[in-house]
Amino acid sequence: MELTHINEQGRAKMVDVSDKKETPREAVAYACIHMKRETLERIKEGTIAKGDVLSVAQVAGIMGAKKTSDIIPMCHPIMMTGCDINFSLDFENNKVEITATARTVGQTGIEMESLCAVSIAALTIYDMCKAIDREMTVSDVMLMKKSGGKSGTFERY
Amino acid sequence: MELTHINEQGRAKMVDVSDKKETPREAVAYACIHMKRETLERIKEGTIAKGDVLSVAQVAGIMGAKKTSDIIPMCHPIMMTGCDINFSLDFENNKVEITATARTVGQTGIEMESLCAVSIAALTIYDMCKAIDREMTVSDVMLMKKSGGKSGTFERY
Amino acid sequence: MELTHINEQGRAKMVDVSDKKETPREAVAYACIHMKRETLERIKEGTIAKGDVLSVAQVAGIMGAKKTSDIIPMCHPIMMTGCDINFSLDFENNKVEITATARTVGQTGIEMESLCAVSIAALTIYDMCKAIDREMTVSDVMLMKKSGGKSGTFERY
Amino acid sequence: MELTHINEQGRAKMVDVSDKKETPREAVAYACIHMKRETLERIKEGTIAKGDVLSVAQVAGIMGAKKTSDIIPMCHPIMMTGCDINFSLDFENNKVEITATARTVGQTGIEMESLCAVSIAALTIYDMCKAIDREMTVSDVMLMKKSGGKSGTFERY
Amino acid sequence: MELTHINEQGRAKMVDVSDKKETPREAVAYACIHMKRETLERIKEGTIAKGDVLSVAQVAGIMGAKKTSDIIPMCHPIMMTGCDINFSLDFENNKVEITATARTVGQTGIEMESLCAVSIAALTIYDMCKAIDREMTVSDVMLMKKSGGKSGTFERY
Amino acid sequence: MELTHINEQGRAKMVDVSDKKETPREAVAYACIHMKRETLERIKEGTIAKGDVLSVAQVAGIMGAKKTSDIIPMCHPIMMTGCDINFSLDFENNKVEITATARTVGQTGIEMESLCAVSIAALTIYDMCKAIDREMTVSDVMLMKKSGGKSGTFERY
Repeated sequence: MELTHINEQGRAKMVDVSDKKETPREAVAYACIHMKRETLERIKEGTIAKGDVLSVAQVAGIMGAKKTSDIIPMCHPIMMTGCDINFSLDFENNKVEITATARTVGQTGIEMESLCAVSIAALTIYDMCKAIDREMTVSDVMLMKKSGGKSGTFERY
Repeated sequence: MELTHINEQGRAKMVDVSDKKETPREAVAYACIHMKRETLERIKEGTIAKGDVLSVAQVAGIMGAKKTSDIIPMCHPIMMTGCDINFSLDFENNKVEITATARTVGQTGIEMESLCAVSIAALTIYDMCKAIDREMTVSDVMLMKKSGGKSGTFERY
Repeated sequence: MELTHINEQGRAKMVDVSDKKETPREAVAYACIHMKRETLERIKEGTIAKGDVLSVAQVAGIMGAKKTSDIIPMCHPIMMTGCDINFSLDFENNKVEITATARTVGQTGIEMESLCAVSIAALTIYDMCKAIDREMTVSDVMLMKKSGGKSGTFERY
Repeated sequence: MELTHINEQGRAKMVDVSDKKETPREAVAYACIHMKRETLERIKEGTIAKGDVLSVAQVAGIMGAKKTSDIIPMCHPIMMTGCDINFSLDFENNKVEITATARTVGQTGIEMESLCAVSIAALTIYDMCKAIDREMTVSDVMLMKKSGGKSGTFERY
Repeated sequence: MELTHINEQGRAKMVDVSDKKETPREAVAYACIHMKRETLERIKEGTIAKGDVLSVAQVAGIMGAKKTSDIIPMCHPIMMTGCDINFSLDFENNKVEITATARTVGQTGIEMESLCAVSIAALTIYDMCKAIDREMTVSDVMLMKKSGGKSGTFERY
Repeated sequence: MELTHINEQGRAKMVDVSDKKETPREAVAYACIHMKRETLERIKEGTIAKGDVLSVAQVAGIMGAKKTSDIIPMCHPIMMTGCDINFSLDFENNKVEITATARTVGQTGIEMESLCAVSIAALTIYDMCKAIDREMTVSDVMLMKKSGGKSGTFERY
């Protein structure tokens, strides 16, 4: 299989999708951010307050998904038709789990938008809690599922 | 210790750093992206060619670092004075390791810029290789070191 | 009626419009900016010159409308197909009246684009005249009319 | 007094502030958004939930303030050192009141950043509630106070 | 023939293309950058290395093409479906020749995207080599060909 | 002399200027755009009207200069302290001449900002007149002069 982003001169190009059909597409991505027990507890307390860390991360992730083609060099601009992010606090493993779903109706996939959403949401959590925990670590940023388009449905085992 | 991003109404604010001194600051961040052996080999071959995946990821990471305050809601705009990214191919664990160093002379830290650089570089590698490997996973996004500013030097374990 | 931007966790989401039909849509918004008589006269003189305040406000409003989905967190990206702004100098009430019309063919409405256009045009007038009049006030930023889409035509009485 | 934004050809320019001294500067702006009683009550209920309308408006206003020089054509880029937004629900007049404070240490004022913050926060409230109330109106967008710089302190009577 | 960007008040507008048909469109633009012999040789050497000047210019040109509607005031946002850039080193005339092809399926042309791509690629070459050659000159930025849309095919003689 | 943008791995980096002194800096760039006689006459007529082509190009050039570090990959973010653009209609050679001056007080030069200003102003003229003249050509984009910084003053012979 070819790396499709490489042109005849051996340099990067934005792949031509002009001839692809418009189909509804969806992608789900996951990330988690490990932290100290104490940090996780502070985030949990925050969810009771109004402007909690997770609400800001939610907004950041959605706005970040809209910037995907501005951030990832060879990504096509996409008319994202929907985006949602969910958080889950895992007190057993001291981490926040982040899942993002992005949707579009278009000629190319929306995987990168969902991956940008979870990554930027995780980095926003880092930013807002770094004063109390510099060692937080973002891990397992990965595509869980995608549907639509010529390559069909993918689901991570 | 307080979460400094929360205002009196319990909502998020951009912390006031007007009174902080300008000091030279540096931050180093790390991330890695796991992949199939075959994908790693393709990337390695690419480093011989002109427009290889890692060169595009390098540009993406540096440009992404410059967008940090546009992406992370409560981050201050910063005059980044330098940014560099290094890649290392790890054939034992089938992953690419990414290290970014960001520098500034200013009133607030540059940790988030270095973390955005490695995250966006990693997502760019994902984007350019996803046609041959959808299961690549970005992990261990973390701050390795930071110096400058009132809180002084931090070095991970 | 539900606030549609809220997800199951009670946090904000970008509403899914994947299933909506593409229809031609139009929105008209209004704003005015009150100022000192003298400021209004200076603006009027300017309209005779080449690079007058209103020409800059016109460009700012149109470019601002294109940034709507980058500025308003839950707005969908939209392919705006047309945008125009008109100014009217009201010497009876010492204000400039601004009307913006935005158009698209798409799955979701273009109201926010027209509201961003008039708001940013008004703020640009403020910026360019603030040296002579700090007390200018932007008021009556509102949607006058919208057509297209499932909810049909709205006209402010 | 001259309109300082006009060059010798009669066209707009970005005023040269190279020779101005760096001083701490602060600006406070105000805006309000009128709505139906019912809409205001829904927003109030929301403040109990996690991802309420005002939290999103808060994030939008702060991020919007950071985009000021990208939105307002003749504005200088500014290193905003702090930004906060407060909301107050006024049930007597059925409106939300918005106050934003922006700070910098620099060669030019930060008035436009505070005005962008309140305007964009107000438009975000509009966006998130427009499904239940299209007639909301943003008014009284104005500078309340500014300090620092050669022209000294201004306070609206 | 009329200048279509001018509204009834004599000010600029974004032309309404709502009624235009969606067609596949392509545009090819050209630019060259003249430089000292020595600079050209350094660029050539670089093409052997991994992160050469032309690879960075390639990424910059493609990302710049995606920013066209953000940079050129009256340009419509466009869903670019493909973009490629080619470089040719001309040792007879001591210049680098740049050709960019942009594609879309839409209601309006993609000429400006191709012109932005070559211009920004050329300016990136200037930026990366200016330490050794400040007198490089970008010339002959022009549209070579466009197809699709109502006005049909254009080819520069 | 070394190409300073290349790191130890042979890839591009943003040069570290942390140790450079802040000095006032100025750069002047030039570009011209050749066109049909008739197009030039239409532009001249326009300068009498309110929203003429050159006013829009002026705003585009200044706003584009502010985007320089977002467009040119290895450029440092800069606090531009002033920017002005002048146009001159040359009826002998059927072209518009564009000169831009950019100023800053900082650790690194402002050449790229002045070059972006003239390039983007020229492309805006192309965009607004392309309906009547597709063969316009931008040429002679070059640095005329720069002062400030360690490398001192440069003036094109």
